[in-house]
Amino acid sequence: MADEVILLDFWPSMFGMRCRIALAAKGVKYEYKDEDLRNKSELLLKMNPIHKKIPVLVHNGKPVCESLVILQYIDETWSDKCPLLPSDPYQRAQARFWVDYVDKKFYELGRKVWSTKGEEQETAKKEMIESLKLLEGELGDKPFFGGEKLGFLDVAIVPFSTWFYAYEMCGNFSLEAECPKFMAWTKRCMEIESVSKSLVDPHKVYGFVLQLKKAFGIE
Amino acid sequence: MADEVILLDFWPSMFGMRCRIALAAKGVKYEYKDEDLRNKSELLLKMNPIHKKIPVLVHNGKPVCESLVILQYIDETWSDKCPLLPSDPYQRAQARFWVDYVDKKFYELGRKVWSTKGEEQETAKKEMIESLKLLEGELGDKPFFGGEKLGFLDVAIVPFSTWFYAYEMCGNFSLEAECPKFMAWTKRCMEIESVSKSLVDPHKVYGFVLQLKKAFGIE
Repeated sequence: MADEVILLDFWPSMFGMRCRIALAAKGVKYEYKDEDLRNKSELLLKMNPIHKKIPVLVHNGKPVCESLVILQYIDETWSDKCPLLPSDPYQRAQARFWVDYVDKKFYELGRKVWSTKGEEQETAKKEMIESLKLLEGELGDKPFFGGEKLGFLDVAIVPFSTWFYAYEMCGNFSLEAECPKFMAWTKRCMEIESVSKSLVDPHKVYGFVLQLKKAFGIE
Repeated sequence: MADEVILLDFWPSMFGMRCRIALAAKGVKYEYKDEDLRNKSELLLKMNPIHKKIPVLVHNGKPVCESLVILQYIDETWSDKCPLLPSDPYQRAQARFWVDYVDKKFYELGRKVWSTKGEEQETAKKEMIESLKLLEGELGDKPFFGGEKLGFLDVAIVPFSTWFYAYEMCGNFSLEAECPKFMAWTKRCMEIESVSKSLVDPHKVYGFVLQLKKAFGIE
C-alpha cells in the first residue's frame, strides 16, 4: 500500500515551509491542504486537538504535530534519501541546540519588528541582527549549516528568509547590508530545488503582513 | 582513554535532574558541579556562552547545552544501555511532541503557582491540573510513558514532581487528590534507582522556593 501523506499548513508559515522542504528533499509525494486559520478545518482540530495549530503531517491517518518533531519524523521515516540530521551524536546535538535557539528567538523578534514601533522595534531589530551574526559564526566557512549539503538546521532556518523583506520594509533597515554572509547562505539554499519550490515569494509575505497590520489596527 | 563527563547543574533544577537521571540510567560516571547562579563559574560562561544557563554536559571538553538536547545526546552516545527514545519513528515523534508540550507549559505554570496570588494563581492551578490530566490520558494504562520501562518522556517529566509539594503549599491545593493516576506514576518512577537517587527532596525544594519568594519580596 502506498503511503498517504497529507500536510495541513498555511502558506506563509515558516514552520509549514520547513515541512515542505523536508518532504521535497526526501521526494515524498503528499497532499497539501492550506488551512483558513480563522475557520480551522475539522481535520486540523481532530489531528491536533492540543495546540490546534499548523503544520500537521498526517501519515496514513496518524498525525505528527510541531514542525521540529515533524522534521525529525520525516528524516527518520524516509531515511534512505537526503539525511537531514548528521550521524554523529555531537553534531546532532549542535544542530538541535541551534534549531532550539532559532525557535526561541526568531519568531518573536520577527513579530516585534513588523508589529511594533519606536524603541521596542529598534531593540528587536538590533537583537535580530545579533542573532543572525551568531548564526553566521556557527556557519563559519561551510557552504551550509549541515556542511557540504543542506541539513536539519538549514531546513529549519531558511523559511524565515521569506519574511526578511517584510521585516526590512516594516523596520526600515537592511539585513543584506548587516549580515551579508547570512544572506549569501540564503541564496545558496535557493539554488536547491527542494528549497526554491517550497518557499513562498517574499513580496507575497509582505502583502500578508500588511493585511495583518491592517487587521490588528497597526499603522 | 576513559570518558571525562562533567555536569554543570544547580540542585533544584528540574532540567538538571533530567540529565542526572539519564546519566544514572546509562551508568555513566560523571563529575557533578553545582553552580551558584548569582555568581556563575567561568566554566559555565565558557561552555554555554549563548544562554549562560545550566544544565551543561561537558563530554571530553565539549559542551552540550539545553536539557532535551542533552538527553538525546546521552541516549545516542551511550546507546548500549537503557534506550530512552523508542526505536519506532512514530512513537519517537509522540514522545518528542509531549516533551515539547511539557516544556512549553509546565515551568511557566509552576512559576505562576508559587509566585502569584488571586486570579492569576487560580488560573495557573487550573491549567496545571488540566495539563496533568492530559498527560494521564497519554499515559493510559501503561506503567510508564515509555511503555513497560522508563523512557524519554518519563525522564523529562518526573523531575517536576519534586516541585509539586512547593506548588501545593504555595497554591493551597492537592495534586494527589486531583490527579491520582499521575501521582501513582511518579511513585512508580521513584521505585527505580536511577530516578530516586537523582531527584532532590521536595521539602528542600519548598525551602528553596520560600527563599526565592523572600528574595523577590513575594508574600
